[in-house]
Amino acid sequence: MSDRSYAILGTGAIGGFYGARLQQAGLDVRFLLRSDYEVVRDRGLEIESPHGDFTLPKVNAYNTVSAMPECDVAIVALKTTQNHLLPELLPPVLKKNGVVLVLQNGLGIEAEVAAIVGSDRVVGGMCFICSNKVGPGRICHLDYGMVSIGSYAPEDRPCGITMAMGQIAGDFKRADIPVKPESDLLLARWRKLVWNIPFNGLSVVLDATTDELLADDGTRRCVEQLMYETLSIAARYYRLIPREFVREMFALTTKMQAYKTSMKLDYEAGRPMEVEAILGNPYRAAKQVGVSVPRLEMLYEQVKFLDRSR
Amino acid sequence: MSDRSYAILGTGAIGGFYGARLQQAGLDVRFLLRSDYEVVRDRGLEIESPHGDFTLPKVNAYNTVSAMPECDVAIVALKTTQNHLLPELLPPVLKKNGVVLVLQNGLGIEAEVAAIVGSDRVVGGMCFICSNKVGPGRICHLDYGMVSIGSYAPEDRPCGITMAMGQIAGDFKRADIPVKPESDLLLARWRKLVWNIPFNGLSVVLDATTDELLADDGTRRCVEQLMYETLSIAARYYRLIPREFVREMFALTTKMQAYKTSMKLDYEAGRPMEVEAILGNPYRAAKQVGVSVPRLEMLYEQVKFLDRSR
Repeated sequence: MSDRSYAILGTGAIGGFYGARLQQAGLDVRFLLRSDYEVVRDRGLEIESPHGDFTLPKVNAYNTVSAMPECDVAIVALKTTQNHLLPELLPPVLKKNGVVLVLQNGLGIEAEVAAIVGSDRVVGGMCFICSNKVGPGRICHLDYGMVSIGSYAPEDRPCGITMAMGQIAGDFKRADIPVKPESDLLLARWRKLVWNIPFNGLSVVLDATTDELLADDGTRRCVEQLMYETLSIAARYYRLIPREFVREMFALTTKMQAYKTSMKLDYEAGRPMEVEAILGNPYRAAKQVGVSVPRLEMLYEQVKFLDRSR
Repeated sequence: MSDRSYAILGTGAIGGFYGARLQQAGLDVRFLLRSDYEVVRDRGLEIESPHGDFTLPKVNAYNTVSAMPECDVAIVALKTTQNHLLPELLPPVLKKNGVVLVLQNGLGIEAEVAAIVGSDRVVGGMCFICSNKVGPGRICHLDYGMVSIGSYAPEDRPCGITMAMGQIAGDFKRADIPVKPESDLLLARWRKLVWNIPFNGLSVVLDATTDELLADDGTRRCVEQLMYETLSIAARYYRLIPREFVREMFALTTKMQAYKTSMKLDYEAGRPMEVEAILGNPYRAAKQVGVSVPRLEMLYEQVKFLDRSR
């Protein structure tokens, strides 16, 4: 039995859900909160889920990292728009050999974290989950939940299955969270971007759900072409994603039916959008290797404009 | 002195303004109206303009073409979204040698009109004017007003200055309307599209005025790239527009300050937008000659999606 301790930096739809599941499985979990701190300190966390609702009346809640004990694994579950806070947040909460698990969307985040804690202590994670925070300390899990994780190495070298990944995977499995180990983190990131770039971007610009974007032939073609542009960037970084993958993403999205992307939810709620992690960094990655991605570029500029206009 | 008679098909911001000026100058003008028919029949037209307000208490108003006498020049001043009506509207109002002047935005319209009335009777016109209909029979002219006109010939052959152009130009000058004759209509159409494509399209998608699009570096670059894409299509049709023209368009637009494009005004008012004339036809022109215009394509699909979503 593991006695690894976890710090959850950002107790929202992602951090709240996974952190609660880890605590429910008996692990030692501490939650960092801002606006919800008092409520969660007094009343704990409440999770609604098709896998069974549950309440944790008592959780270790903190509103500052300086009060938190050092932990073995720090899970970064903030929005990437808050990542400028990481240089303050991460060092105090990590044991000497502690590991950071980044549960965020987009490209280039692990390198930023590695610059803070060292490159041999960073694991990237991608959540395939529909989950919303519906109130302070109240998370509504709707569907899915799988997390794929891969270790980071400088210059995005694939590093196979590392011990840190194995330990985290073990803890997650104990909490009944499906985990998929990825031997090549960058490949996994690009695969997720193939979906995230078109659907997040267009859903904001066109005020549309995924099913609306797929129901119209024209926007369907836009989605497809943006996916191919993404494939073409990945290929220049030696990550070959077969064109067949685009068809799989269409099939998957059709099965999901009406879905509001995270960027669209942020936009509607008046929160900053993850423009740079999801669109800006991939665009700059393309530029750096001279791949032409006119559609991604225009989409990036459009979403950035809308993000700033508010 | 001319005794040419004019039929104005569509008495809105454009048709109402130019028709009123022609009548004011003593020409015989008949106006076709739909929703404003009763008001204009009873009260005439009222024009506010920096060049002097004026009222025409009595105009020849019609609500059907079958009642209109045949004329020498029929001015098509409908929105292009109404052009499916032209096969019914044009033949009854034209004398045997009558000419059609198309005062509309976009590409490919003269060919449609030529298919109805014959290709030697079509003159295309582009209005450089800020003008709005502010009520039934009430037009508010804000600025500018120049009309450039060019004769149509099959396959868009340049046809120099024709007699029909000369006669129309004469009547317009008599009405103090600045006229610029264009020896190559298609070149003039592409030049106008260089401005219309980016500003009309992006103003709708991003809910923005021209000055807002220019104030943001990212959208400014989008505008510029869309202009270059437009140049590249025109070039494949042997219409060479120098790259310097893009800079001129930026200077002109900066001078105009905050401006709402016609497509944006239509979108806000819940009216159908001129998507096909301004974006769809240029996109298809590019496709036909194999020019890659990914930004125009995405913009076209985006605006079409928004047009349909209402």
